Amino acid sequence: MTPEADVDAGRLLRRLDELAAVGATASGGVTRLAYSREDVAGRELVAGWLREAGLDVTVDAAGNVLGRLPGHAGLPGALGTGSHVDSVVEAGALDGAYGVVAAVEVATVLAASGGLAHDLLVVGFSNEEGARGTPGMAGSLAVVGGLTPLHLATPDDEGVPLAERLRGSGGDPDALASARWAPGSLAGWVELHVEQGPVLADRDLRIGVVTAITGRVTLDVVVTGVANHAGTTPMPARRDAAVAAAHVVLAVQELATSGGVRVATTGVVRTEPGVRNVVAGRAVVGVDLRDESDERVDAAVAALHEHAARIGAATGTDVRVVPGSQVPAVAMDPGLARCVTDAADSLGLTRLDLPSGAGHDTQVLAPLTPVAMIFVPSIDGVSHSPAERTAPDDLVHGTRTLLATLRRADTLPRADTVPPR
Amino acid sequence: MTPEADVDAGRLLRRLDELAAVGATASGGVTRLAYSREDVAGRELVAGWLREAGLDVTVDAAGNVLGRLPGHAGLPGALGTGSHVDSVVEAGALDGAYGVVAAVEVATVLAASGGLAHDLLVVGFSNEEGARGTPGMAGSLAVVGGLTPLHLATPDDEGVPLAERLRGSGGDPDALASARWAPGSLAGWVELHVEQGPVLADRDLRIGVVTAITGRVTLDVVVTGVANHAGTTPMPARRDAAVAAAHVVLAVQELATSGGVRVATTGVVRTEPGVRNVVAGRAVVGVDLRDESDERVDAAVAALHEHAARIGAATGTDVRVVPGSQVPAVAMDPGLARCVTDAADSLGLTRLDLPSGAGHDTQVLAPLTPVAMIFVPSIDGVSHSPAERTAPDDLVHGTRTLLATLRRADTLPRADTVPPR
Repeated sequence: MTPEADVDAGRLLRRLDELAAVGATASGGVTRLAYSREDVAGRELVAGWLREAGLDVTVDAAGNVLGRLPGHAGLPGALGTGSHVDSVVEAGALDGAYGVVAAVEVATVLAASGGLAHDLLVVGFSNEEGARGTPGMAGSLAVVGGLTPLHLATPDDEGVPLAERLRGSGGDPDALASARWAPGSLAGWVELHVEQGPVLADRDLRIGVVTAITGRVTLDVVVTGVANHAGTTPMPARRDAAVAAAHVVLAVQELATSGGVRVATTGVVRTEPGVRNVVAGRAVVGVDLRDESDERVDAAVAALHEHAARIGAATGTDVRVVPGSQVPAVAMDPGLARCVTDAADSLGLTRLDLPSGAGHDTQVLAPLTPVAMIFVPSIDGVSHSPAERTAPDDLVHGTRTLLATLRRADTLPRADTVPPR
Repeated sequence: MTPEADVDAGRLLRRLDELAAVGATASGGVTRLAYSREDVAGRELVAGWLREAGLDVTVDAAGNVLGRLPGHAGLPGALGTGSHVDSVVEAGALDGAYGVVAAVEVATVLAASGGLAHDLLVVGFSNEEGARGTPGMAGSLAVVGGLTPLHLATPDDEGVPLAERLRGSGGDPDALASARWAPGSLAGWVELHVEQGPVLADRDLRIGVVTAITGRVTLDVVVTGVANHAGTTPMPARRDAAVAAAHVVLAVQELATSGGVRVATTGVVRTEPGVRNVVAGRAVVGVDLRDESDERVDAAVAALHEHAARIGAATGTDVRVVPGSQVPAVAMDPGLARCVTDAADSLGLTRLDLPSGAGHDTQVLAPLTPVAMIFVPSIDGVSHSPAERTAPDDLVHGTRTLLATLRRADTLPRADTVPPR
């Protein structure tokens, strides 16, 4: 083993460009929708690099590409790393792709320098983004046995069921059980990703040590007032759903600015009938609340119910909170996160503990194995846009931190002796 | 002349039912869209009643139905009364129709009792409502020479130009000049209408003496923020167009509740991209301001510009006020309004001076002649709905007030000796 072996910055950045060329768009972005020709081509490019590095490469029934580098100590459970190959429409070059190409680079370095004590498993997950209305995180769900017949049968936005998408891109919906990872098959998992937010860039820090992936509640606040003539209805006689909705928007914002939850968003505000000469009879405010504590999210939802009652009484409207989805927060493994911290410190890289406000395949793997995530700065925090950028030096720093993290994790007590979180 | 001759309540209410049956809908409402078969049938029904009463009846090139009862004194200028025959989709039975049927009733009574000193002109205007995206008040615009070639050529929501609508319903777009009323042809105009608001009903008053038709400004407040990831963008880093729009809605409401204008409405509120997991990058608030004073409307618009600047600065967004339409307020003629007041008092009917928040053909006629309007209560203030209702007694009270008003106006000094307002 040669611990001093280091990542090849030129190769890393060159391969990022090569992958970015697969699905490149006129606007300078990337469109590599899950199950598309570009997605399969991107997967094949990754598979080729892994084979070139000497790994055993397979594509599973869910379309995930997997490369295995045997460990020299024959320890149980592999150390896994990677991210996703697919992208949204008009994405940047880094979301998902960076974590995959960095994992390839780390595997290439380790393969050339004797490997780890554990097996190393490099993964390019399929369909994290849920493009075209397919279920997001389909690839990682498949490996934990979470991709259901209902998922497979449901038509996407183009009317095509997931099963057919899989068949058409080299997967096998009838053999998904073969894609499942057995309990104990992983000793740990580390995903490297761009932050997709402005926190590291704003503070000029190099590495984010992710503490948790935030839980998320979505809900609708539905206001029922009385539609009425905008000219003939005196102000005191109105039950104006637009005015009530405005109070709701400000109350939701305050759930976060008061410190209740990390972020609270009202991306959807819509009045009905939605014409200028009619007092709004109905309004919908679509709400998204996220925090690393499920208890704080629950408390914010309870507070929102109280605000709704208060606003309804004050405006003469009926204000109802209609539940949507709820995804619990996922804490990172403290031992693995400590490996990230120590890795950054050993490389002299400034760092910050922070939660991830976006979802990642890592949260799906958490029930199976200890998990950690590493962030690098996103310039201006831009995400899901051709304007997504990270400085090349930071891309190299992140990959070095991933390599150092895996080397440290390789020396942790065996995973099956770590008590479950 | 027999001043004691009174309206026939049974005939009035029966004819209202007969007209309501033309275009009656399953929901109990009325759909008599301008230029439709139902609209023409409604006009023919009115024409028949007017002929039956002995009036000279014509349908002009714009589709207005006109009945003339010669005056016994040969005075210059007719006293006009009426309203519109057409309706919106799923209207009630009274909006427009009431003013027409009451005018027919008054003409019937007057024709049987020797008429007025002035000619009496009964009018059922065509297309006040502007259904299907045609220009509203097209019939009254035609008689003042305000229906332009552009109006005639513009396709409506179904792609049909107004000229073709006219031709298909017995009108003549090439002969519109023949529909124009000469200066001095009217000595005064009185329109009877349901209030379309709750003011008279709430106070249990019988007659509204309209003081003015409010002026109206429409405008859009357009907020430009920055669309961003709802999970990864910290609250202080946001430039949230939804939050800015909420402040705009409340600021617009305050323009009225502070006493600045009579009513201020934000019927349209819409965020973009309008999805739950993206901080809104853009929002539009559609605004409608009305007051009987144009100066107060102008001051409110100026205040809104100041609010926009303040809200933009506070939320880190760009908030612009984009002008829409502006219709000036129209004051009623004090002399004619006094006739309404005296008429109600002579009948022992409680009354209130109030502005009209809705537009009416009367505002189009105001440059041509002194005008007045009479309102009767709308139960619950409901308008443009099958649930529109007025108590039968109030319908009779209103018609008696119209008759008494015209008798009083008939004794006013000659119109051409009244100085212009």
